[in-house]
Amino acid sequence: MSDQAFVTLATNDNYAKGAMVLGQSLRNHNTTRKLVVLLGPHVAEPCRDALHSIFDEVIMVNVMDSGDAANLAMMKRPDLGVTITKLHCWTLVQYSKCVFMDADTLVLSNIDELFEREELSAAPDPGWPDCFNSGVFVFRPSNETHKQLLTFCSEKGSFDGGDQGVLNSYFNTWATADISKHLPFIYNLSSIAIYSYLPAFKQYGHDAKVVHFLGKVKPWNYSYDSQRGEVRGHSASPDPCHMHPDYLLQWWQLYATSVLPLLQKA
Amino acid sequence: MSDQAFVTLATNDNYAKGAMVLGQSLRNHNTTRKLVVLLGPHVAEPCRDALHSIFDEVIMVNVMDSGDAANLAMMKRPDLGVTITKLHCWTLVQYSKCVFMDADTLVLSNIDELFEREELSAAPDPGWPDCFNSGVFVFRPSNETHKQLLTFCSEKGSFDGGDQGVLNSYFNTWATADISKHLPFIYNLSSIAIYSYLPAFKQYGHDAKVVHFLGKVKPWNYSYDSQRGEVRGHSASPDPCHMHPDYLLQWWQLYATSVLPLLQKA
Ligand SMILES: O=c1ccn([C@@H]2O[C@H](COP(=O)(O)OP(=O)(O)O)[C@@H](O)[C@H]2O)c(=O)[nH]1
Ligand SMILES: O=c1ccn([C@@H]2O[C@H](COP(=O)(O)OP(=O)(O)O)[C@@H](O)[C@H]2O)c(=O)[nH]1
Ligand SMILES: [Mn+2]
Ligand SMILES: [Mn+2]
Repeated sequence: MSDQAFVTLATNDNYAKGAMVLGQSLRNHNTTRKLVVLLGPHVAEPCRDALHSIFDEVIMVNVMDSGDAANLAMMKRPDLGVTITKLHCWTLVQYSKCVFMDADTLVLSNIDELFEREELSAAPDPGWPDCFNSGVFVFRPSNETHKQLLTFCSEKGSFDGGDQGVLNSYFNTWATADISKHLPFIYNLSSIAIYSYLPAFKQYGHDAKVVHFLGKVKPWNYSYDSQRGEVRGHSASPDPCHMHPDYLLQWWQLYATSVLPLLQKA
Repeated sequence: MSDQAFVTLATNDNYAKGAMVLGQSLRNHNTTRKLVVLLGPHVAEPCRDALHSIFDEVIMVNVMDSGDAANLAMMKRPDLGVTITKLHCWTLVQYSKCVFMDADTLVLSNIDELFEREELSAAPDPGWPDCFNSGVFVFRPSNETHKQLLTFCSEKGSFDGGDQGVLNSYFNTWATADISKHLPFIYNLSSIAIYSYLPAFKQYGHDAKVVHFLGKVKPWNYSYDSQRGEVRGHSASPDPCHMHPDYLLQWWQLYATSVLPLLQKA
């Protein structure tokens, strides 16, 4: 399965830490697929070094320098910088199939079965469930698709200002065409859903396979008391603006035990 | 199409007002289907009279008196009173196919095309999008299904304490089996979704066909200044706990112009 890969993206050191935790969580659950991280030019060397020891491939992406369609798209829509960088994953044509995962996701069990799905498979977004959430999706690298996505992006923009808007407009039959392209929600469980329909979380949440810390506050915005094994400044009381404390703690435990040592070595 | 019907439910006078607005909104958009309302025993006569002038059938349901499976289920699970009353819609075997709609929904355009769908078709719930929302669903009346639903209900209960939990557990392949049973979200647009992913609402919301005022605060909990044509005590500022002001105003306009005169006559 060396022609299939999990792919993530980080354009700065914070998201790079997220990528390390994600990569490590995939390793801990014994994935048989390759791990690839796309890096923007602003990720510092210690982070790059640590990423090298977790991922099979660390690929630098600087769309501004690329002198091709991506650069052109970027000139027209500088606001879509990170989005255009994310779309770069379609150029990974050394792989036949990939699963993109946001750097703010955490894997709770082996999810290699996702590679049985076709492009574009993704889970529904809890905010507007006829849109898929673009934090986890199955795709087929293709330079042709990449070019079309960039053209789409520069001509039509994004209705939400990010990659999710672009991808939903481009893959616009997701909601209606093929149920096999609907990943179960437990492959992209966002903390928001926990509070908006708690009984469903209690009923189905124990099967969660991927947690997605979407929204403004990310795990790395907290701090961790490694002596006590506690996340600081995070109340355990349910609050829709906060993340689920168990998942947040898991993220930090993985960070403290497996990622921090790599960063300190670097 | 006299063997197909829209069905709603009201167990008290407040929900009865909702049912009137819903029924009137279906009439205003020229449905060719029958309109049926199931009433619990606590709906007062003026409301019943007004409902008679909007709906084709007004059916009294008192599961406690029914002396059959429904009564039995009710003895075992008194907490599921309204749910068991809602399940009664499966006994409407004089119709070959029906669309159930919560009394807190409002129709914005003709939706007769829903009758092309099969049981059980419904839109995703924005809280946990692998569950369908049970505020709008297509079903086939059947005494057999009704009995099975009641048995299920009394043996397993409801994971959310209401009909949505029961129906999702019973029709448990909805998320994975058949995309044609996924109604587009615009057939059950909940006010919650507007604020949880506003850009999507701006992109797709203008096509809304059914608005669902789900949650604790219902349109009838506000009051209306008919002189000014304004809903009182509802701020126009976006707030996830509040309903979208335009839809709320539409509900009240319909109530003031078409429903109130009927109630005052009664
Ligand atoms: O400044 C940024 C913002 C985003 N991202 C990448 O783009 C993804 C999507 O952004 P984010 O997760 O912040 O969006 P959300 O899931 O909260 O909508 C992230 O997970 C990262 O992989 C990044 O590298 N740098
Ligand atoms: O006391 C009640 C509660 C509910 N209902 C009916 O059951 C539906 C579902 O309840 P509700 O709409 O309050 O739930 P929500 O959609 O807010 O989850 C209502 O629309 C009504 O048709 C009723 O008749 N009486
Ligand atoms: Mn994310
Ligand atoms: Mn409702």
